[in-house]
Amino acid sequence: MEILSRHAAFGGVVLFCRHDSKAIGLPMRFSVFLPPSAVVEGAAPHAALMYLAGLTCTEETFMAKAGAQRVAAELGLVLVAPDTSPRGANVEGESAHWDFGLGAGFYLDATEAPWRTHYRMESWVADELPTLLARELPVDAARLGLFGHSMGGHGALTLALRHPGRFRTLSAFAPICAPTQCPWGEKAFRGYLGQDLAAWRAHDASELMRGQSGPPYPAGILVDQGLDDKFLAEQLKPELLEVACAEVGQPLTLRRHAGYDHGYYFISTFMEDHLRFHARGLAA
Amino acid sequence: MEILSRHAAFGGVVLFCRHDSKAIGLPMRFSVFLPPSAVVEGAAPHAALMYLAGLTCTEETFMAKAGAQRVAAELGLVLVAPDTSPRGANVEGESAHWDFGLGAGFYLDATEAPWRTHYRMESWVADELPTLLARELPVDAARLGLFGHSMGGHGALTLALRHPGRFRTLSAFAPICAPTQCPWGEKAFRGYLGQDLAAWRAHDASELMRGQSGPPYPAGILVDQGLDDKFLAEQLKPELLEVACAEVGQPLTLRRHAGYDHGYYFISTFMEDHLRFHARGLAA
Repeated sequence: MEILSRHAAFGGVVLFCRHDSKAIGLPMRFSVFLPPSAVVEGAAPHAALMYLAGLTCTEETFMAKAGAQRVAAELGLVLVAPDTSPRGANVEGESAHWDFGLGAGFYLDATEAPWRTHYRMESWVADELPTLLARELPVDAARLGLFGHSMGGHGALTLALRHPGRFRTLSAFAPICAPTQCPWGEKAFRGYLGQDLAAWRAHDASELMRGQSGPPYPAGILVDQGLDDKFLAEQLKPELLEVACAEVGQPLTLRRHAGYDHGYYFISTFMEDHLRFHARGLAA
Repeated sequence: MEILSRHAAFGGVVLFCRHDSKAIGLPMRFSVFLPPSAVVEGAAPHAALMYLAGLTCTEETFMAKAGAQRVAAELGLVLVAPDTSPRGANVEGESAHWDFGLGAGFYLDATEAPWRTHYRMESWVADELPTLLARELPVDAARLGLFGHSMGGHGALTLALRHPGRFRTLSAFAPICAPTQCPWGEKAFRGYLGQDLAAWRAHDASELMRGQSGPPYPAGILVDQGLDDKFLAEQLKPELLEVACAEVGQPLTLRRHAGYDHGYYFISTFMEDHLRFHARGLAA
């Protein structure tokens, strides 16, 4: 793992990192915030919270815009923000669409050629990256939380449900809750997974939740959604996640916020609540 | 004044605005944060704090990266962030340099052709914009504070000293403190002001401070500076401002922070201190 740059922040440090990902077969980038307690010599392993960003974002977006470092410094939480797709795969057409290909990996392992060679974000985020973090940084792989925004909210919900026990706490901002039933998800799944609807359902948070035999997160899942979000009705559909959670008895705190839109002004407003929610769960 | 977009944040709202500037002769953009107390019907005029950004920035940079809205919401402070140069002047060569022309207006009125037609940032920021804000928004023009970063720190210091009584409180992050003695300032002043060294000195914060007959800000000026800032020795020179303040008895709190660099991770770390500093001064 190579540290590309370091920036002091709130008594800790923001790191921009790169490593040669075996899962993806290319160098991949991510950012890390180490709170003050994690930058001292001989720091103990810390709880860590991974943030999955949305369409068009990079590993920088969360660190620059979400305003999370202040509270993470106070709580002693490590923050990790991976990039949103492979870079340099050179798949034909990967930069032709803002909602598919580059910046739009959808946090799954593609099964369709030509994407399946490198577009393997699930293996990278859920398996390789936690191992790397625990080896290279003061991170306790047994105390990982996961959250994300929009496409990254879909990623957080689906990776948490597909990898039981990997992530102890779970929340999301304006997640794509039922990608088998919205244009973004249909386009991505057709491209990465082909026509097999069973494969699609295995990456749909609401379908995954409905398939649980009991509540996977008994202490609850937190979701914030703005009501002036222009993607709410067509792409996000939190009501379908709400129904699915109710079916299996999964406690869900779904907060609908009048006036808020889909962007980082919304996210930064409720970031502190999410950080404290995860810190409580990761300390329990 | 046209509101281009609105984004709810921390119970208030971020506005991106445009108006036809008479001072500049072109449409100009700025952003505003209205705290919760300023978005209610019939809101009273509020104290407002204007932030001048650095080289290459726009009216968006501060709102997206500085993390100021949370505390401004709490304090009931309006925040205003103007763009950093005219846009659309179509001066030959204005986009050829990242540190001169577009995104680099240096908060002065140019006197040299061809810049003098539109590059009139001082008149816009110090005169036209405060009047506009007080007319269009719940802003009390008698309670304005000013701060900025780097080139915008230079702008804050010089505009505050050149317009006595206009801005009641003053602070800066990593300001260019002596532009007549650094490459950024020399290049900008030669281009915008020509060869007249007296004109240069009239836009140099340290020279302006040395020319005061008494302390212009008896309650103090706050400056934060990172010690890992790669521009510190060659471009910023806070020690010259420190000497000038001492000469005229101007109280200066110049905080030097080990490990911090020139960017927004540094700025966001100390933003809360600046907002509380201004709120105290503007309430006094």
